[in-house]
Amino acid sequence: MNSNTLTNENLLWIERLKFNDRGIIPAIAQDYRDNTVLMMAWMNRESIQRTLETGEVHYWSRSRAELWHKGATSGHIQKVKQLFYDCDRDTILIKIEQVGDIACHMGARSCFFNFVPIYPR
Amino acid sequence: MNSNTLTNENLLWIERLKFNDRGIIPAIAQDYRDNTVLMMAWMNRESIQRTLETGEVHYWSRSRAELWHKGATSGHIQKVKQLFYDCDRDTILIKIEQVGDIACHMGARSCFFNFVPIYPR
Repeated sequence: MNSNTLTNENLLWIERLKFNDRGIIPAIAQDYRDNTVLMMAWMNRESIQRTLETGEVHYWSRSRAELWHKGATSGHIQKVKQLFYDCDRDTILIKIEQVGDIACHMGARSCFFNFVPIYPR
Repeated sequence: MNSNTLTNENLLWIERLKFNDRGIIPAIAQDYRDNTVLMMAWMNRESIQRTLETGEVHYWSRSRAELWHKGATSGHIQKVKQLFYDCDRDTILIKIEQVGDIACHMGARSCFFNFVPIYPR
């Protein structure tokens, strides 16, 4: 058994997650070095398993309705460093190493580049 | 007009967001000091507007199906520091000051306290 093989224990927490009625769950990708939030996308069971098996983040593309190996085309792969889920078991947080330091398909480091001016307090 | 009144320009970006078929959008709350991701919850148009008007984060509670002024009961209010939305306009990121330094209803600082052991690479 190599280190990438999933054991039953690895899979148990996945089955306890609360996937929505489409069988997916939101996943937040955060830079493991400085905690910058890079993007939010969705995962299904298969993408979580592929992420654990490969050490590289796989999402579920809702628009293409297919498994999405992040960076497979662009080279901007996300290497998993730490993985968490929240108290309600309905959101995943992944600390990653972002290859190329670009997570956004529009070329930005983070997808959250739209700033809304608010009144300072 | 006081500083809390929303102008048309304030509201325009909200109308451009992509709410899901339930009229809500995911919102990530992040500590403005050290970038810790504290929680993820959902917002509708009204909760975004109330957040901007008051400077305190309001979510939409899916379980209670009502506007949720975070911290109204517990005292663990979230004061808005910066607000962003992502490239796809379907996720919000809010940098906040977490009063009491506890965001989770279970008493933890962050809701993401469940750590999944993964194979180091």
